[in-house]
Amino acid sequence: MTASILVVGSVAFDSLKTPFGQADEILGGSATYFSVSASYFSPVRVVAVVGSDFPEKHLDVFRKHNVDTTGLAQVQGRTFRWKGEYSYDLNEARTLDTQLNVFETFKPVIPEAYRSSEYVFLGNIDPELQLSVLEQIKRPRIVACDSMNFWIKGKLDAVKRTIAHVDILIINDAETRMLANEANLVRAANGVLAMGPKTLIVKRGEYGVLMFNGKSVFGAPAFPLEDVFDPTGAGDTFAGGFMGALAHADAVNERSFRRGIIFGSVMASFNVEKFGLQRLTDLKRAEIDERFRQFKALTHFEEV
Amino acid sequence: MTASILVVGSVAFDSLKTPFGQADEILGGSATYFSVSASYFSPVRVVAVVGSDFPEKHLDVFRKHNVDTTGLAQVQGRTFRWKGEYSYDLNEARTLDTQLNVFETFKPVIPEAYRSSEYVFLGNIDPELQLSVLEQIKRPRIVACDSMNFWIKGKLDAVKRTIAHVDILIINDAETRMLANEANLVRAANGVLAMGPKTLIVKRGEYGVLMFNGKSVFGAPAFPLEDVFDPTGAGDTFAGGFMGALAHADAVNERSFRRGIIFGSVMASFNVEKFGLQRLTDLKRAEIDERFRQFKALTHFEEV
Repeated sequence: MTASILVVGSVAFDSLKTPFGQADEILGGSATYFSVSASYFSPVRVVAVVGSDFPEKHLDVFRKHNVDTTGLAQVQGRTFRWKGEYSYDLNEARTLDTQLNVFETFKPVIPEAYRSSEYVFLGNIDPELQLSVLEQIKRPRIVACDSMNFWIKGKLDAVKRTIAHVDILIINDAETRMLANEANLVRAANGVLAMGPKTLIVKRGEYGVLMFNGKSVFGAPAFPLEDVFDPTGAGDTFAGGFMGALAHADAVNERSFRRGIIFGSVMASFNVEKFGLQRLTDLKRAEIDERFRQFKALTHFEEV
Repeated sequence: MTASILVVGSVAFDSLKTPFGQADEILGGSATYFSVSASYFSPVRVVAVVGSDFPEKHLDVFRKHNVDTTGLAQVQGRTFRWKGEYSYDLNEARTLDTQLNVFETFKPVIPEAYRSSEYVFLGNIDPELQLSVLEQIKRPRIVACDSMNFWIKGKLDAVKRTIAHVDILIINDAETRMLANEANLVRAANGVLAMGPKTLIVKRGEYGVLMFNGKSVFGAPAFPLEDVFDPTGAGDTFAGGFMGALAHADAVNERSFRRGIIFGSVMASFNVEKFGLQRLTDLKRAEIDERFRQFKALTHFEEV
């Protein structure tokens, strides 16, 4: 079974401050969190750009997780930098500084060997770049895609053109409401589905996830944690676990989607337990399966 | 099986405004929503007070649902009135006016025939009155209790004395954090459990419910609805369905608690579909069981 996953997104240096501590210029970015998370399930191929300041030890993080970095371009200049802060309400980051650097002129080039990847994840980048990725690849089984308020506000037409071509859109509840211009989440979800994607996965932070496909809804709570240290990358880690589990099962159906959402939630729950990638790079597969079983115990109830 | 439930709380005239319409002086109050909801599962006995302006047609609502109104005192004066407004974010009401009227001097007297009720729900009233109810009753199987920020702020000692004597505390997430003085919900829940209740049920509005007992956690999403017209009474309707299902099964264990939470969520999901008690007074038992099955479909996923 097990098929390969292609991810296109950002690799960055993150500087973070939470009520529990801080970290300066640690490895981050959507493609990074996604890759490491998905690597526990399936082979991953990454397309992103870093600058000449990107150290060998960070490349080792990808290699250690068998992530194919053929598509990770290193160019002259500084790597993308993001600085953010969280208050006690860990649901939303306050961006203090964004330096796009080499990411500003990023034009994803998909290596020939990647073009037949069957599972594709378009991380949260300019929707026009997401479209350019779709033009370069052969027909994958599943294309999933992330976006954000910045693009929905600034490039709505391009967002709509992109999501018309994806199977699964993975965004948060505020973005769902904004995209559909509708306050009720169920109506907003149906509005987004009418734009093209067959499935919409709505991330709700500490409140879990809802999946809509126009026929049924699936809801999963987030795993209740006593210690949430750093929510950075939780959304991409979720997407990585979700796509990883799908590619591992190499099955596209309601059953595999639901299990994928639980695996995604499991990975996200680990990710927030420590700073940056710390917990995610130090996981055992047995821990993942054990927490999956805890999710079952968390949500199980008997029939009527 | 099926045991009787005693509820002590408020019966009121509510004036409501939501983005979808408004209603003036309709029947409301915590004991009202709780009673009607629980009545679909078990016999209910109500203790509350109304004024001389309380019309016969409202008494008929209780009677139609076989709610025993022996304990519903009618006294000289005006019935409790509450006026509130909701914006598009239907999670929280803005109180425009509160007239306690006859409720201001309410001293719950439990009729002799009620004192051996095995399931007791203390609606959101002054914690000292909640304690006085506990002093009047024989040893029930389960005492559940609601409270609110107003009492936690103003009468913290009395709240703590009351919840030290209850089996199940049913409050919302903000109240849980406030009561334990802790931002993390899991830690806050454990802090509240340390105050006495064996079980804590945390209501999170459109995000569903979490149940803590110190050993395990149960999480259920809210039922996703396209039309939410009026959230008034959702919390008491939830508690009514929960206690009703418990009393009907007359079983006190993890299994019955989890099923109770789903039945409570089912009842709350019906309640918000129309104004006031409209939907709740017009339900068929088959609809309740059907939505319970939909909850199963909403949350089910296969083992790892």
